[in-house]
Amino acid sequence: MEKNCSVYINGEIFSPEKAKISVFDRGFLFGDSIYEATLCIDGIPLFLEEHQKRLQNSANLIQMPLTENLATIKKAILKTAASKNYKRAIVRWIVTRGEDKINIFPGQNLKQNLIIFYKELPPYPERWYKEGLRITLAETKRNHPKSTNPQAKTGNYINSVLAAKEAQVGETDDAIMLNIYGEVTEGTTNNVWIVKKGVVYTPSINSGILKGITRTKVLEICEKNKIPYRETKIFKEDLLGCEEAFITSSTKGLVPIHSIGNQKLTKGYGKITGKINKLYEKVTTDYFKTFSKS
Amino acid sequence: MEKNCSVYINGEIFSPEKAKISVFDRGFLFGDSIYEATLCIDGIPLFLEEHQKRLQNSANLIQMPLTENLATIKKAILKTAASKNYKRAIVRWIVTRGEDKINIFPGQNLKQNLIIFYKELPPYPERWYKEGLRITLAETKRNHPKSTNPQAKTGNYINSVLAAKEAQVGETDDAIMLNIYGEVTEGTTNNVWIVKKGVVYTPSINSGILKGITRTKVLEICEKNKIPYRETKIFKEDLLGCEEAFITSSTKGLVPIHSIGNQKLTKGYGKITGKINKLYEKVTTDYFKTFSKS
Repeated sequence: MEKNCSVYINGEIFSPEKAKISVFDRGFLFGDSIYEATLCIDGIPLFLEEHQKRLQNSANLIQMPLTENLATIKKAILKTAASKNYKRAIVRWIVTRGEDKINIFPGQNLKQNLIIFYKELPPYPERWYKEGLRITLAETKRNHPKSTNPQAKTGNYINSVLAAKEAQVGETDDAIMLNIYGEVTEGTTNNVWIVKKGVVYTPSINSGILKGITRTKVLEICEKNKIPYRETKIFKEDLLGCEEAFITSSTKGLVPIHSIGNQKLTKGYGKITGKINKLYEKVTTDYFKTFSKS
Repeated sequence: MEKNCSVYINGEIFSPEKAKISVFDRGFLFGDSIYEATLCIDGIPLFLEEHQKRLQNSANLIQMPLTENLATIKKAILKTAASKNYKRAIVRWIVTRGEDKINIFPGQNLKQNLIIFYKELPPYPERWYKEGLRITLAETKRNHPKSTNPQAKTGNYINSVLAAKEAQVGETDDAIMLNIYGEVTEGTTNNVWIVKKGVVYTPSINSGILKGITRTKVLEICEKNKIPYRETKIFKEDLLGCEEAFITSSTKGLVPIHSIGNQKLTKGYGKITGKINKLYEKVTTDYFKTFSKS
């Protein structure tokens, strides 16, 4: 359980100990829920509009038309954030298909549950940014888009939990999964990038990945700043033979990759990764300055 | 929510309205839990030992060593069942990885949560057994064993929920999924069988299915009674071109399949399905007679 955290449940705000949900909630029974999470600075959720759009997309992908509109959800998020005075925090909002009989077939007219976590975020380990992440190449393969589409951010995360367990066993910081065709997909909760001969590469959506918000921002930065880039199939050999590599995440930003298995890459930010990171920091700073709470 | 139901949570029994769990439970956040479910007659859970063995297997597959031993869990199940006087019921027991910080990486020394539902089971529609199930062949493909192994019965069930939604749209009773290689796998919560020229076929475990308890019993019945059978790859054409088909489930038993999409099969139990069904009923009757609560 988180200690420094507010939990909003359907209009009311609870302390962590009191934040409970019915065991008949389909989110609990089947992982039948969707969610978003992002970094907050002074209560402002980074790229909130983009996250809301993706929440809508996840809802479509699991055929769960949202019964609350996004403006109402935004209000609830800001209300929850206003309940605490955290400088840095993560907001996570979950919509479940609602309480139901215990049946894989969803009942009619269920009342969806909205749960929002607003938790203080201590700094991530300095080593991650100074030296880079130690990465395990997982044996667990990423879910296939025709089965459990990684583009939908849902309550079904055992696939990534198993990859995370591999990283724990290997005593690394994270794990990257291939798909069953051997293409690089993504980390447990982040997108993956490599730099090879001055070109930035990231796996194509078709390899079966989440369309990360930071990922989109980095692609826009490359486009605007004439940094050559490609979204394409990437294989294990590309990953192991690259000059720089990094991950992107809404909460962690750009984090360099130090090594993959025994294969050492850069120490800290490489030249191009560092350049993109600076440009990305500018984009986020501008966002926080111009955010409108209405 | 179920109405006629007892819910056991970590030693205490609750009415459905009061049965709640922390939103920090990993079962709720990530579907990071395992479960079993079976039919109960007069409070006796059908093939309890086999279900417990499978729970253990699911725990192994998601690397969540059970902290309660199976004997303690059995006691809790029987205690929950004893709280009501239902003639026919379903018992469903869930073990979650426990409450945690919000992080895909599981924390150390988590306290697993045990939740047991004991709910009255009204008879299934008579039509299912008299005429057979109308089945949709789903577009959703069954999870790949290297990603989210269908042999683990977990809280990640969106794959089956999406197939169930297809059945709802097609106004049928259930959906059967193929895997991404086109092999028949299973229904939303049941195993699939066909009969062709007097031989009984069921998908091999290698096609990516749950090893159903009733499935094992039916295989044993075929073996003992010299009914020819094979566990093998089955394709869509086999399914559509068979003489009889049925599903097996711990709660529903053997249910004949009436039609798959527009393709009509038998009306009610075919000759061989009917024969196996009678033999299976005998096996269950014997089980209930000889069950020991110790």
